[in-house]
Amino acid sequence: MSDHTVKAFDDDIGELRGLIAQMGGLAEQAIGAAMDALQRHDLDAATRVIAGDKQIDAIEMEVEQLAVRIIALRAPMADDLREVVAALKIAGVIERIGDYAKNIAKRVPDIDAHSEIEPLSIMPAMANLAKAMVHDVLDAFAARDAQAAVEVCDRDRAVDDFYNSLFRVLVTHMMENPKTIGQVAQLLFIAKNLERVGDHATNVAEMVYYAATGEHMAERDRGSLTASEGV
Amino acid sequence: MSDHTVKAFDDDIGELRGLIAQMGGLAEQAIGAAMDALQRHDLDAATRVIAGDKQIDAIEMEVEQLAVRIIALRAPMADDLREVVAALKIAGVIERIGDYAKNIAKRVPDIDAHSEIEPLSIMPAMANLAKAMVHDVLDAFAARDAQAAVEVCDRDRAVDDFYNSLFRVLVTHMMENPKTIGQVAQLLFIAKNLERVGDHATNVAEMVYYAATGEHMAERDRGSLTASEGV
Repeated sequence: MSDHTVKAFDDDIGELRGLIAQMGGLAEQAIGAAMDALQRHDLDAATRVIAGDKQIDAIEMEVEQLAVRIIALRAPMADDLREVVAALKIAGVIERIGDYAKNIAKRVPDIDAHSEIEPLSIMPAMANLAKAMVHDVLDAFAARDAQAAVEVCDRDRAVDDFYNSLFRVLVTHMMENPKTIGQVAQLLFIAKNLERVGDHATNVAEMVYYAATGEHMAERDRGSLTASEGV
Repeated sequence: MSDHTVKAFDDDIGELRGLIAQMGGLAEQAIGAAMDALQRHDLDAATRVIAGDKQIDAIEMEVEQLAVRIIALRAPMADDLREVVAALKIAGVIERIGDYAKNIAKRVPDIDAHSEIEPLSIMPAMANLAKAMVHDVLDAFAARDAQAAVEVCDRDRAVDDFYNSLFRVLVTHMMENPKTIGQVAQLLFIAKNLERVGDHATNVAEMVYYAATGEHMAERDRGSLTASEGV
């Protein structure tokens, strides 16, 4: 590439990274806000999370258009092309994470304000673990830091463990309080959504690793369903 | 484009369409096979579905590489570019549909062979509705048929209705048979996975519509969670 093209490409990539960081920040925030709305049974806050998802979708579209423009106009090669494709795919994953936050928010009206379902109080801790994975993997992308990406993957195990134990606690709660089954089923889905956020952060970490090194991260046994889930 | 380039582009697009058709066929088949394994409690069949998902993932990677190569080498414009980008995104969605089939298969061991959970017997009908949407939307893509894509979208309502009624039936079953709650929770997740397959077919339909017409399908009220789900 000529110096001029290199400069233009760098500007484009900078813009792409900026959009991804912005999307990631919104998705992270949406998860926190959805869990907060759930705890406080705040229907207005839940509605805001649902409405806010459109903004994440809109940025994904911008990323897509910019990535296609970069590929078509700058014809980046090797490392640069990998990074543009990674950005495109990462935007798709963040959009899905935003959807999980939206899905959590949509369930808020179904949980009674004064329900005393004690597992509800430990769910924000799980959400924080998953959210932190999203935050850190996007930092790893911004810094092209393959090692940081590996570390994020390693943390998915903790989210899975949290999910498995929550699954058991929620099923037990249902057995002991059959009247709450409808509500607790909603919490099961929320726990599953959070577990999927962790999986998606892991997927992004694999993309960051590939973009940074050109190699695939060693296969790990990281299924989203583990034996212990089958209570 | 020169005649030569047009020919090369047409060949590439043909290859891309072929890969998408192949992926879609595998995903459809995987849903059917997973539901079949669930009904018959066939653990070997479930294991084959899980293993088979790798093939879907591999084709997605091929689509991605080919799409990027087409954009970089042929610099397609307007309609052609929209089609390549649509193929790239559709492959991503089919990969997700394959994941849902895999997730269903992973739950097979958790449902007892002789459990008499009657809602189980109606779930294949829901799976067939969702599977048919996937099939028809990929036909619409192959034929660049915007109208067929709209018709697929319209059918998502039936899948959602099925899900909502199944949700209620499953929750009632849990209340009446607390000992089966762990297993029925697995069926709840499977029903949700099938409902998501319908949503994804709808997403693909929107992409097909956009690729074919250059316009976005009119916004519809097609949320994945409806009020009646909150039993």
